[in-house]
Amino acid sequence: MGIERLKKEVCRANIKLYRSGLVTSTFGNVSGIDRERSLVAIKPSGVSYESLTYRDIVVLNLDGVKIEGKLNPSSDTKTHLELYRNFKDIGGVAHTHSTFATAWAQSCKPIPCLGTTHADFFYGEIPCTDVISDSGIKGDYELETGKLIVNTFKSRDYDSIKAVLVACHGPFSWGVSADEAVEMSIALEDIAKVAMFTMIINSQSLNIKKSLLDKHYLRKHGKDAYYGQKKG
Amino acid sequence: MGIERLKKEVCRANIKLYRSGLVTSTFGNVSGIDRERSLVAIKPSGVSYESLTYRDIVVLNLDGVKIEGKLNPSSDTKTHLELYRNFKDIGGVAHTHSTFATAWAQSCKPIPCLGTTHADFFYGEIPCTDVISDSGIKGDYELETGKLIVNTFKSRDYDSIKAVLVACHGPFSWGVSADEAVEMSIALEDIAKVAMFTMIINSQSLNIKKSLLDKHYLRKHGKDAYYGQKKG
Amino acid sequence: MGIERLKKEVCRANIKLYRSGLVTSTFGNVSGIDRERSLVAIKPSGVSYESLTYRDIVVLNLDGVKIEGKLNPSSDTKTHLELYRNFKDIGGVAHTHSTFATAWAQSCKPIPCLGTTHADFFYGEIPCTDVISDSGIKGDYELETGKLIVNTFKSRDYDSIKAVLVACHGPFSWGVSADEAVEMSIALEDIAKVAMFTMIINSQSLNIKKSLLDKHYLRKHGKDAYYGQKKG
Amino acid sequence: MGIERLKKEVCRANIKLYRSGLVTSTFGNVSGIDRERSLVAIKPSGVSYESLTYRDIVVLNLDGVKIEGKLNPSSDTKTHLELYRNFKDIGGVAHTHSTFATAWAQSCKPIPCLGTTHADFFYGEIPCTDVISDSGIKGDYELETGKLIVNTFKSRDYDSIKAVLVACHGPFSWGVSADEAVEMSIALEDIAKVAMFTMIINSQSLNIKKSLLDKHYLRKHGKDAYYGQKKG
Repeated sequence: MGIERLKKEVCRANIKLYRSGLVTSTFGNVSGIDRERSLVAIKPSGVSYESLTYRDIVVLNLDGVKIEGKLNPSSDTKTHLELYRNFKDIGGVAHTHSTFATAWAQSCKPIPCLGTTHADFFYGEIPCTDVISDSGIKGDYELETGKLIVNTFKSRDYDSIKAVLVACHGPFSWGVSADEAVEMSIALEDIAKVAMFTMIINSQSLNIKKSLLDKHYLRKHGKDAYYGQKKG
Repeated sequence: MGIERLKKEVCRANIKLYRSGLVTSTFGNVSGIDRERSLVAIKPSGVSYESLTYRDIVVLNLDGVKIEGKLNPSSDTKTHLELYRNFKDIGGVAHTHSTFATAWAQSCKPIPCLGTTHADFFYGEIPCTDVISDSGIKGDYELETGKLIVNTFKSRDYDSIKAVLVACHGPFSWGVSADEAVEMSIALEDIAKVAMFTMIINSQSLNIKKSLLDKHYLRKHGKDAYYGQKKG
Repeated sequence: MGIERLKKEVCRANIKLYRSGLVTSTFGNVSGIDRERSLVAIKPSGVSYESLTYRDIVVLNLDGVKIEGKLNPSSDTKTHLELYRNFKDIGGVAHTHSTFATAWAQSCKPIPCLGTTHADFFYGEIPCTDVISDSGIKGDYELETGKLIVNTFKSRDYDSIKAVLVACHGPFSWGVSADEAVEMSIALEDIAKVAMFTMIINSQSLNIKKSLLDKHYLRKHGKDAYYGQKKG
Repeated sequence: MGIERLKKEVCRANIKLYRSGLVTSTFGNVSGIDRERSLVAIKPSGVSYESLTYRDIVVLNLDGVKIEGKLNPSSDTKTHLELYRNFKDIGGVAHTHSTFATAWAQSCKPIPCLGTTHADFFYGEIPCTDVISDSGIKGDYELETGKLIVNTFKSRDYDSIKAVLVACHGPFSWGVSADEAVEMSIALEDIAKVAMFTMIINSQSLNIKKSLLDKHYLRKHGKDAYYGQKKG
């Protein structure tokens, strides 16, 4: 994939995130990676989505060295890079402060898998990281945030749960592309909202049983998936 | 009714559902039946509402054999067919993952009839099915979901309560036509929302008394109905 | 005021109510009165707001006898008439099933006056009627609903609290004109929403003190009011 | 800064507030100050935002004497003036009755700093004033409201926490300009909303730790700030 094409994809994904209503102020950023060349394209920091064009997109290598672009990359860039270095199969990362996912992150609780809508997208609860340590904050904060996420997935599969809540902060999501990372942010926000309302109606609500989780996740994403037109 | 006309009606009803704001992603589907020919028209699986035209609508017989259409039908097709086979008078079925109805479904609780808005549309509480059994999940899942709904209505009248919550999943609704099925989905979501807020304000809220339920349901739907212009 | 002009005013007020987002389906209705001729103009029953024109507005005398119009008047007409007969100074009545005001009505609780926004519009809590009696339901239901409201205001001033919650049903509001009745419906919904959130944040929240209520209500509505440009 | 330019800035800021969706009815007002000439420009009282032009903006000196403009200034003018007289570095003030910030104000509770979104804008919890005293209400009410705010900030830094909740009333915010005051109102409403949802999900949620608050506030606002493009 040429760099121009990657920059355009990443710009489009950022604008899609903005139009989805998940972004307030200049918060939120999406990146994408060209795995062959090991180059990451990401939104510049603090730039308005309304004026964003693909020429503003910043390109860096996996060590964070800027390769192309006049603007500063997103202040969360090191978190994105840490995810690309550790989640070898992902092609895009998205970060938002969307209302309901952020509320769960601020409450320092994972989002339980309370229904099939959740299971259609994520194979189990959305984990919440530990609160970052003081040494993590005082050190390379955004890198440490990435490490916290990677650590949370040591015992989990990043390919079937493509999102995380960073405690006291907000959600990150990822996917095979920048576009899928945004799709996961949108799905996550919807699920976070319904989960909160479910807990309001019945505070005893529990994770759905494993057999139902398997059924819904696998009918869409398993090797024998039969949802949609892709098999046709 | 000609098949073309049925396909157009079903397409229009799907688009109405989408425009009502009840649909997220590609979730949700509406079908309609031509009772004379025993043919069901339904949305194709995983197709974007934005690009949907009536030519995409899939036609099947009541045994699920495809009669017309290139695309795969909705993955929930067998649930729809089971409803048509058992609820002999219905002409349309709709399924959504709308926010508040889904929250009630995920909480595994029926929506009590807390006011006259509810009573204007549904003659009593909206029931919630049992959680589907493991054998139901491992068997023909979507068919078993339909059976669960039919079973829930063994002791209820599907003609005066045109909606159900499938536990841990979401709502289904129906009506004399695809269009009315969508109307019921819209009314259900509104009622589910107000019911949740009512419980927040007063957790002791109860079903309204039978005399008030009768009054409101029957002034609109009873044989002496006097609401609207139809009697005129 | 000529009948044509009254019909146009009432039509405009109905459309304003619809555009305010307070109306779902065909619920909701606004009326206005010409006190000189004792004629009431009201929305027809079950007619879509989108196609409503002033020619559809129905005119009746205070006994409910239709004077002009081909369509049936709103099914709530007798409630409106009872209010006009008893609240001698009002010029308009509005009824909605708006989300938050309806939730309070369904919870059978008055809306406490929790802040100055409330006090700017309503001089104290918004009362909730008793639940209508079985004899009231079986009798002339809509007339009895009106009597219930009038009874609730026996010990209150309908001129400084221009709204009520009908228990298990929803809100009615009124004003010097159909337009003001709609304004009161809009203000009521906003206040009902903020009041619910206030109770969520602090379930111990209480009515504001009398001195603050007086200050805010009277600086806008008292004889020495100094809010706005009217004094200028 | 010329008076014309100040009036245009203040008009634009008022319209921005209105378009942000934070304003209902004619509530809300924004002012700006020309520190060189000690002149304050403010929205007129009770005027519709839709028809507002910069020619309607009222100009006063810091003693409240009208210098320019035909209309009455906002009824909250004395509160604005008291803030300008005491918070020497501010250039603009905004007041709204926005839903969630007002709910916190009505609940008489400060908004705790529950996450990094809050810390990105405000350096710690948003304080809530005491309830105004009866003598304050009976005296020069709007001036006394200003004094209450100033008093609340005796032990706080108005430059790093640019907003306050007036108990039983609603929020005020400020900034280096009328535009920034509006930005703070928008941020405050968003934070107030997420904070309420966080408390719903986990009623034990606490202020984030000092080290995380410092990190987020200072990376955007400290002398070594590295967020955005300003350093570039």
